[in-house]
Amino acid sequence: MTGPCFIFFFLLLNLLPFFQTLEASHCSIKGLPLVRNIADLPQDNYGRGGLSHITVAGSLLHGLKEVEVWLQTFAPGSRTPIHRHSCEEVFVVLKGSGTLYLASSSNKYPGKPEEHFIFSNSTLHIPVNDVHQVWNTNEHEDLQMLVIISRPPIKVFIYERLVDASHCS
Amino acid sequence: MTGPCFIFFFLLLNLLPFFQTLEASHCSIKGLPLVRNIADLPQDNYGRGGLSHITVAGSLLHGLKEVEVWLQTFAPGSRTPIHRHSCEEVFVVLKGSGTLYLASSSNKYPGKPEEHFIFSNSTLHIPVNDVHQVWNTNEHEDLQMLVIISRPPIKVFIYERLVDASHCS
Repeated sequence: MTGPCFIFFFLLLNLLPFFQTLEASHCSIKGLPLVRNIADLPQDNYGRGGLSHITVAGSLLHGLKEVEVWLQTFAPGSRTPIHRHSCEEVFVVLKGSGTLYLASSSNKYPGKPEEHFIFSNSTLHIPVNDVHQVWNTNEHEDLQMLVIISRPPIKVFIYERLVDASHCS
Repeated sequence: MTGPCFIFFFLLLNLLPFFQTLEASHCSIKGLPLVRNIADLPQDNYGRGGLSHITVAGSLLHGLKEVEVWLQTFAPGSRTPIHRHSCEEVFVVLKGSGTLYLASSSNKYPGKPEEHFIFSNSTLHIPVNDVHQVWNTNEHEDLQMLVIISRPPIKVFIYERLVDASHCS
């Protein structure tokens, strides 16, 4: 067997908020003002150090069914997990710089990913189910991005590690 | 008959670029770099003075099927037409301020729209098919927004005017 092997598990991002807001979501949608100051919106890090995640417009909080918009900020050195999801995703980089690691889903195994430099005022999109990771590789500055996804709420498959098959037991 | 009457016509935004790029689109998608500098992307005004429209990530240019992202800048006093579309739309205001006029589709006729002040770092979304208009009512500053839509390419119904029934001939 050639190529890497991997272990993955299933994560429904926003799982905790989902259960927290399930009962209140209808009221929340009706009660929220139409125009919201992003500075006043709640942020979370989902247990990931260095991450700030704000749902700017979402399915569970705001009743959207087809798109969702996040503002994500990564402290220097922080990163997303290696992951994929069955939806389209667009990044708009607002501040900072970093590296996108991308493994095309057209390969049987993710393999060695491509490295792409991302920078302020750049944009890119991730094809459906392509495995990828965003890493703030700039030691001196936060990386801030608007993230747009389709098919909310997102279901994320996280890869615990990528290792060569020769290293698998 | 009470309420306003209106005239509308159908506009497929990006119609001209569609015909221009139909043959070349496949090559364009393959030929484009994954990470693109937004400052280098083409802009258009679609014949509307004071508008700058940049397709940051789009269906026809970039092969997206479920979401599309635009960067739109309105000079002081400029505005969108009164319009609606059968898709979700999210605004993220990056610079400036202005007014959103919104008439709920739950009313039989658009009627007198609600007025909402929009400002830098605010966000809002337009329910599917709600008639609306964005107007840069700030005399001193451009209004710049990221616009996210579902179901690209967008089909826009533009309302030529909104008048009270009593004024209709």
